[in-house]
Parts: sequence; C-alpha cells; structure tokens
Amino acid sequence: LRDLYPGGPNLALIAPGEAPMGDVDVVFLCLPHAAAAATAVEALEAGARVIDLSADFRIRDAGTYEAWYGGTHPAPALLDEAVYGLTEHAGDALEGARLVANPGCYATSVLLPTLPLLAAGAVALEQAIIADSKSGISGAGRKPQLHTHFVEANEGFSAYAVGRAHRHHPEMLQEMRLRGGSGVDLIFSPHLLPVERGILSTLYLPLAEGWTYRQARATLLAAYEDAPFVEVLPEGELASLAHVQRSNRSAIGLTDAGRTLIITSALDNLVKGAAGQALQNMNRMYRLDETLGLGDTKHG
Amino acid sequence: LRDLYPGGPNLALIAPGEAPMGDVDVVFLCLPHAAAAATAVEALEAGARVIDLSADFRIRDAGTYEAWYGGTHPAPALLDEAVYGLTEHAGDALEGARLVANPGCYATSVLLPTLPLLAAGAVALEQAIIADSKSGISGAGRKPQLHTHFVEANEGFSAYAVGRAHRHHPEMLQEMRLRGGSGVDLIFSPHLLPVERGILSTLYLPLAEGWTYRQARATLLAAYEDAPFVEVLPEGELASLAHVQRSNRSAIGLTDAGRTLIITSALDNLVKGAAGQALQNMNRMYRLDETLGLGDTKHG
Amino acid sequence: LRDLYPGGPNLALIAPGEAPMGDVDVVFLCLPHAAAAATAVEALEAGARVIDLSADFRIRDAGTYEAWYGGTHPAPALLDEAVYGLTEHAGDALEGARLVANPGCYATSVLLPTLPLLAAGAVALEQAIIADSKSGISGAGRKPQLHTHFVEANEGFSAYAVGRAHRHHPEMLQEMRLRGGSGVDLIFSPHLLPVERGILSTLYLPLAEGWTYRQARATLLAAYEDAPFVEVLPEGELASLAHVQRSNRSAIGLTDAGRTLIITSALDNLVKGAAGQALQNMNRMYRLDETLGLGDTKHG
Amino acid sequence: LRDLYPGGPNLALIAPGEAPMGDVDVVFLCLPHAAAAATAVEALEAGARVIDLSADFRIRDAGTYEAWYGGTHPAPALLDEAVYGLTEHAGDALEGARLVANPGCYATSVLLPTLPLLAAGAVALEQAIIADSKSGISGAGRKPQLHTHFVEANEGFSAYAVGRAHRHHPEMLQEMRLRGGSGVDLIFSPHLLPVERGILSTLYLPLAEGWTYRQARATLLAAYEDAPFVEVLPEGELASLAHVQRSNRSAIGLTDAGRTLIITSALDNLVKGAAGQALQNMNRMYRLDETLGLGDTKHG
Repeated sequence: LRDLYPGGPNLALIAPGEAPMGDVDVVFLCLPHAAAAATAVEALEAGARVIDLSADFRIRDAGTYEAWYGGTHPAPALLDEAVYGLTEHAGDALEGARLVANPGCYATSVLLPTLPLLAAGAVALEQAIIADSKSGISGAGRKPQLHTHFVEANEGFSAYAVGRAHRHHPEMLQEMRLRGGSGVDLIFSPHLLPVERGILSTLYLPLAEGWTYRQARATLLAAYEDAPFVEVLPEGELASLAHVQRSNRSAIGLTDAGRTLIITSALDNLVKGAAGQALQNMNRMYRLDETLGLGDTKHG
Repeated sequence: LRDLYPGGPNLALIAPGEAPMGDVDVVFLCLPHAAAAATAVEALEAGARVIDLSADFRIRDAGTYEAWYGGTHPAPALLDEAVYGLTEHAGDALEGARLVANPGCYATSVLLPTLPLLAAGAVALEQAIIADSKSGISGAGRKPQLHTHFVEANEGFSAYAVGRAHRHHPEMLQEMRLRGGSGVDLIFSPHLLPVERGILSTLYLPLAEGWTYRQARATLLAAYEDAPFVEVLPEGELASLAHVQRSNRSAIGLTDAGRTLIITSALDNLVKGAAGQALQNMNRMYRLDETLGLGDTKHG
Repeated sequence: LRDLYPGGPNLALIAPGEAPMGDVDVVFLCLPHAAAAATAVEALEAGARVIDLSADFRIRDAGTYEAWYGGTHPAPALLDEAVYGLTEHAGDALEGARLVANPGCYATSVLLPTLPLLAAGAVALEQAIIADSKSGISGAGRKPQLHTHFVEANEGFSAYAVGRAHRHHPEMLQEMRLRGGSGVDLIFSPHLLPVERGILSTLYLPLAEGWTYRQARATLLAAYEDAPFVEVLPEGELASLAHVQRSNRSAIGLTDAGRTLIITSALDNLVKGAAGQALQNMNRMYRLDETLGLGDTKHG
Repeated sequence: LRDLYPGGPNLALIAPGEAPMGDVDVVFLCLPHAAAAATAVEALEAGARVIDLSADFRIRDAGTYEAWYGGTHPAPALLDEAVYGLTEHAGDALEGARLVANPGCYATSVLLPTLPLLAAGAVALEQAIIADSKSGISGAGRKPQLHTHFVEANEGFSAYAVGRAHRHHPEMLQEMRLRGGSGVDLIFSPHLLPVERGILSTLYLPLAEGWTYRQARATLLAAYEDAPFVEVLPEGELASLAHVQRSNRSAIGLTDAGRTLIITSALDNLVKGAAGQALQNMNRMYRLDETLGLGDTKHG
C-alpha cells in the first residue's frame, strides 16, 4: 500500500484471485463492471456478504444494464436480491442483506435531495429535473489518462456526456421513478472540476402546483432530521465542497427561485460517494451503529 | 506595471486623476461602479470617447441600477446615449459611439448564445431559461479577499447568489427581453471555479413549440457565420475552457436534449469577457478591422 | 468556527481579551509576535501554562529578537524560562514547563534532520549548510494579501528572503550552534509553493572529514529510532509532501552525493510545523502519551 | 491538431514516416531519444537541416550517451558536427549549421547563469555547484503516467534523481567543464512542481578566491547585455515563474550570500527550454533576426 500512498501504513496487498473469500465476513468490491459481478458470485458462494462499488447491481433491469455497459449481465439472477445502498433510503432492506449495490457518486449527490421531494409529490412532472453536476478528478479513476493528466486538467473545466448520455443517468432515473412515478424525467450534465475530490450538484426542480419553497424545505428537513450524515443547511446557506471534503457528510442547500427550487448538494465522491457510504452500509448490514469508523457526523 | 506583473514591460502607471483626458482619443475605464460614471463624464467633457468596463452604463433604467448598486446614478443623462457593447449584437450603433458600456463577463457568456434564439422565437416563455455559470477566480477581482485566498479557493468550489440575486442578472434580463419580449425569465447560478481565467456557462433553454434542436442550431450558425470571434462548435463538441483561454474567442456547443436545448458557452472572462471585447468595440467605433490587436480569430 | 470552516463543528469563538485564563490549564497562543508575549504574561499570571506559537520566545537573546522583529521585547524576563519546543530535542525540559516556544514550521523541517548530525560532529564547518525550502501557501497566513491571492499564487513559484534574510534564520542558527558550535553557518532559501500545506526542505550538508554517508545515516536512524513521528525513510526513498500531509509525521530521506549529504525533509506546516507539535508538546508537559490526539504515528 | 488542443487551428497532422523531408528546409524533431537520431539521419540525407529537441546529439561522447540512455548511439558519426544549441553560447557555429542539438530545459536554466561565471574563473572548484531546480509538470511529458495524474501531482511536491542521477546531469557537466575546466563538479536536484509550465533553478555557487558578488554580477550583466531574451534582474529582485511564463525570456536574479553566490534562474520549459529556443536557433541558422516569431524580448 505504501508504494501507492507514501503516507499510509505498509500493508501488503494481494491480487483479487488470492483473496480468502471463505475466511471473511464481508467483501468490498472496487472492480471494473462485469469483473465485479463475477467476483461477487464467488464471494457469495464462499459464504461472504458483498458490498459492490461497481455498477453491476445498481440497475435492476438486466436489459437496461446491457444497453449501457455492453455484453451480457454476468449474474442477472442476483439483481432481485441486490439492495441499492443509498443508505438513508434503503430502509430495513440493508439489515441482513447479502449483496449491496453501492450507489454511484453522482447518483448519491443527486438522489439524496430529490428522492424525498419526489416521494412527497413536490415536483412537477411536466418538465425535466435538471442536475448540473461538477466532480473532482478522482471521480475519473486513478488510471492515467490524457484528460486526467495534470497539465490537461489543471486550469481546465469542461462538460461531458450532458443530457441523458452518462452511465449514471439510468441509475438515477430508476430510483427517481421508484419514488415519483414513471413520468419523472431527468437532464444530467456532469462536468470535470480541477480539484482532487468533491461533487457539487446544482439542481433545478420545478415545483408541483400547490407546493411552495417552504413546504419543500420542511419535507427535506423532516426526511433527514435523524440522518447522522445528511445535513439540510440553514436558510440562505449554499452547499460547497468545503462543507464535505474528507468526510462522509452530505450538505444540501435550498434556494427559493419562485416556481423553481434550486438545490445545491455537496459530498465527497471518495467518501459518501464511495468508500464511506460502503462502510455506512456495512454498519447497517450488521446492525452496528451507522456512524462507526466514519468520523464526524453532521454538527447539531 | 512591472511591479504588478514581473513579466510585463516596465510602463509607468499614473493615477486616474492625472490622466490627460484631453490628449487621448479614447479612454478605457476599469474603475469601481459610480467612480466609473463620474470619470466618464470628465472624459467625455474633455472630448475623449469612452469605453466603460464597469456596470454604470449597462443598465438602461436608472431605477433598476440604483436598486442593485445603491446610491443615485451618477450620470443618468448619459444612459440613453450609451451603447451596450456586446459587439456582435450592437450593430451599427458602435460606429461613432461616444460612450460604450462593455458587458459583464457572465453576461457575455450567457447572451451570445441566447440572443439570436430569443430574437427568432425559439425559446418557450412558460419556463425560465437556466444559466448555470462557472467562473475562474480572476472574475472576483484582484483585491485580496478571504474567498480568493489560495488556500480557500484552491480545492474549493461553491455557488453564490443563485437564482435572481446576482448583479449581472438585471443586465442579462434586460438584453434578453429586448429580443424575446417581456415574458422572458432567467435563473442564473454563478459558481466560483478554482482556475485563473475562463467562464463556462451551461444553459438550459426550453424550446418553443414547433422548434427543434436542428432549427435552433441553424439559427445560431447563421447568426455567427461572419463573426470572427464566435464559433458554433461542430456537432457533438461541447465548449470548454481549453477552447478559449487567452483568446478573444467564444465557443458555443449545442446538445439535443429533446424539448430542452443544452448550450455550453465558453469564453475567457479577461478577454472576450472584458479587455478583449473592449478593444473589439474600439475597433468598431473607429471603423477599423474588428480583429486588430486581438490575436487568433476562430479557425475555419 | 463554522463561519470560517463550513465543514467544522459550530463552536462559538471568543475574543482573546475574554479568554478565562484562570479557568484553564493551558493556553495555546496563535497571535502576532509582541501580542503573543503580552498575552503569555497574563496567562502565566493567571496560573495557566502557555504554549506560544509565535516567535516571541524562540530566540533566547532579546537583542537578536529586537533586531529581527523590531521594538523592545515585551517580556525579556521570561526568555530564560521558555523551553524551545522542538519536541524530539527538548528532552525533559518540557515536563513541567510553564512556557513553551513552539518552533517555526521551516525551522522544524530544517532542524529535525540536522541537529543530530551537528551534535555528532558530522558536518564540516568550512562551508555553510544550505537549506532550500519550499512551503505551501498556508505558511503565509490566512490574512488576504496580494501574493496569496489565488490568481497570483496558482501557477506561480518564487523564492523570497534567500540567504540569511528570513526571520526563521536566527532561530535555526541558534539551535544549530547550540549543537554544532559557533562555527556553524546556514544559508536558507525559502520558496512559496502553490499547494495548501506542506514543507519540503532540500538540505545540502558538507560531511566532516572522516564522516561517510553511511555513518550519517546511522546517526539519524539512531536519533529517531524511538521517535513516534519522525521517520528516516528506507534507503533510496526521498521525502515528499505525500508522506506527511495532514499528519504530525516528519519524513527524512538521505542521499549519498559524495562529500555532500543531500537530505529531503518533509512535514505538514500546519501540523508538525505548528498545531500538531504544540499538542505533542502539551502531551509531554503533562507527562501524557506523546501521541495522544495526533493520529497516525510513523509506520513500522 | 484541434483534437489535441481545442483552442488551436485545425491543422492536419501526419505521421513521422510520411513527412516530406525533401520538401522542407528545416526539420524540428520532438521524438524519443534514439528515434530522433535515426530520423535526423533521414532528414539530413534528404537535404534538410535539423533541429533536434531530444538528447541524442547533446552529449558529445558516445560512451557517456550510451551509459545514460542505453543501447548503442544510432548516429555517432554526427556527434562532431552537431552544434549544442544554447543560443547565447553557441556563437557563430549556429550560422549554417546542418544539425543543432537543442538543450534540455533544466540544462538551459542552469547553464545560462553559470557558463559566463565559469568561463571567467569566478567559481571555486573545491566545492560542487549546487543546482536545486523545480520544474512544472509539462516537463514530464504529455504521455499519461501515474505521477502526472492530476490527483497525484496537485498538492504534491517531490524531489527525484537528486545528486548526479538525472539524465540532464552529464549534459550540464559537459558544458560547464568546457568553460570551467575538468575540476568543475555539479550536484543537481530536480523537483516536480505542481504548475503547468516553468522552471525555477536556485543555484549556489562558491565564489573563487578574489571574486566578490559585485564582480560576478558585473560579469553576468556584461555577458547578456545584448542578449534579447536573457535578463539579469535589477539588484534585489529574485527570478520567479511570473517573469517568464509563456515567453522565450530567461530571468536571472543574483543574491549576495558572502562566499556563496545565490542565483535564481527562471524560464518557461516549453519555450526557452524547448520550442522557443529551437526557433531562436533556426533564426540564427538562417541569419535571420534572432527574435523573429518569439514575442516579447526582455524589457529595457
């Protein structure tokens, strides 16, 4: 490990094929899609429980998965069993789950503030929800590529896969429609931000008739009152990367723009958007305190 | 000058009060608002022509100006004469103009792609246009402030004054309504981006009934066919800061998202968003070649 | 606190004058020089112990202090009592100390690898030791200044106060001469590095006659064998900011360059270079485990 | 070209093998070592003149080259003919040269301030010259690698190949000894700096007996009085990246540190350290004005 991270402890690393699946309680998978599902099957057969950070079990419909990721789904029989691990919205399904699909980082930042509003009927379905998201460069992975080269990324800023073209789109739409019905539409514009870590999503939600900014705010406050890591910010405060970097917290700011509700939603893509949420899910799977090993919760 | 910019020539600088207004043809004002208008009056009285980079002459209605900037407008009598210097849309008014109001950097990035569409009736008025803009930190000025301190800004990203709360909002709405009518509405969300220079605005325009992505694209291509600095990018290409940094060019990318047109619009806030456009305006005021002194034009 | 650091807990802050000095055991002073000494006197009189992070008690000679910092030393009577808190070299003096002068960040990075070698006679005195140091921008303080403005600092790199002109120079020379004798000379070249945090000092030490690279390495390994936060890196490994950022650790790499020993010495200027070392000193003052509250120690 | 640099003109690129060597006057080679020499032979045989930006013709001794770069030198017969293209020191050899070896970026920053002093006998040979150099990340090339990944490089700073271990070391030592004799020694410590472009070398030169700071300064001022791109800075001013970025200029600052002369030497590794110096050499090869196509010269 120390060769990769000079500041870390000198742990020996082993290849995935050498992992003693039968000797552990739970396996965290950070593998490319398809490879993840195949390894998950092995781990489950060896008696371990699995938290998968790939996309393999996030999309419930194998056909949709195959349309976005290509090939044939490696383990369609597991799709029904897999629990979508957006912790605050997974409910009791996490307890005792054998297989958890840890959500994407963009998806977590977009879904946390929108699902409670969709479930409550606060969003007008005539227009698409717009999610304008900006992600730090660790979101693009550690493999060296030209667009993540320092000289390309630094002083740069660009959009990519805007509209309905990004692989996290079907995952978000699926979860949104589970709460808000099949009429929900989403436009999602990811951007590559020259920082190491953090996602800020700026969301534009058309309020449903009869709904006001104040009611929407009350809905979100109630939804996350007891959530240790999701904070609806005080009135007038916008979410920023500084709220969440290096923590498992998510910060949500709400702005009244008349018939449009503007939401700023921030999290650290490497923590609440990945490893932190995975650990939070493990805590829930084992009925442990949800906050164990995760550092600061939101501040009262 | 060299004390401020070690790489520049060693020009002596003089205080505004010592400027020999009567000896020059044209004065470029980069002063705080209110101070700019007062100095513009002096310069005009001395026989010079004025290109003002402050907000003082951008907003045609003195009451609106005062509501956003406070105080009493220092020279309301000049408001009618001032030409709004969004070069590509100022038409013949620039030629011979005595006083030009150089547009704001955000405003230039938002107005260039939207004005031709509004003028053509391509935008549905039932919904607000959404402009999600991200600006490099030079946009916040050179005066040291806590939020522009390296340690605060670097690795940071935040929204501010979202909705209809930023001072460039009335300027943009004014110009939009001049083309698209009083029904036009705008939601504008500026963000502070940890790069030195460049603005990328991601715009969401609801298409009017009967309008398609393809028609909107044709409208913009036609509008800027002969504009040396405004480029509508090839199909599928999104605008990025890399297209425009250190040039007077503006890059506009169009994405078909069904009933919503997504536009990415990029410029360098210090060039096309400020000094470059000022020079472009001067060229037009004096019936010179519009591109003089401005480096690369768009590439054919 | 939360207004300053959105991610932190919402602690109320009080003005220095309102601090209940008589109710606390120990006071950490992060005040400008001169103000620090005056407040230290108050705190000591109120019965508290003091860890001062300013320069006021680092320089043992009031005349030298006054030559570098101007004015008259505010509390010269305390200079004899103050313990120079380079923890690993303060010995038993820390235990029970009433007043500790926490070293400067540059000084800590330069002194940790050089003091054991000077004490052992490993350094030739005919030439100056050269310390070429590079510090992240938090080292320049949080007060907004032009040279710490993002647009000035980003993409920038510059030296300042090179030679014997920086205020940390007398502090370093004092400690070096205490170990190596009055013949020790030091050239110190600080540089401003466009990162938030971290110092890397590259040191060039002429080896004394009879001394080899290998002996010098053995001397440093022995000196820090039991130091929980100071790590002499494995052969061939150079110290970098990645070794130490966000930790109280110091990393020291040694390179054999014949008669010159090249040392790379890294620490986090905000932790081992400031607050972390202060806490480490407090632990020692109260005979607590030296590592309490300080996170990871060096890895075995 | 535009696929690589969105802001550039849309030039078609061709593979090296398709280059019409016989149809051009001069060929600039930016190829890996060994490949460069082989292509140089082809170009020369086709009648073109060659400016090679690789290391292949910088080192005069084939054995030394092979020790550092491996393999067998691909064209040792050309080594005698090749002119080392440190423009200001190549003298008349450039005029009419068929083959120019463009110096390395680090080498240019170190040699410009040291060669005149070595030639004048100003440097004591008992000690090594120390060059502590810091280079922006474009110096590591455009090929994606882990250590140039944004997330690794940003907020990072590290030394590498310190002492006498870097491939530019033999090139520098060769040129230094040509002026100062075989007794010259050099310690060179390169560092990777988290900026796009620019090198700052901080040099420590022991003055020879009888030499003073003032004489050394006079020597350098005289050496570069007529050099359009090399500026010896005013007394008290240190060189910084801001002096030279995006220009072909080199800035040299001198600091009196007693028997040690501290020199700060800055250039842009992509311009004076590479393409700019190549163009400057071409101008000289064809007896053109040396400054053609190179933008600002130093300011009077």
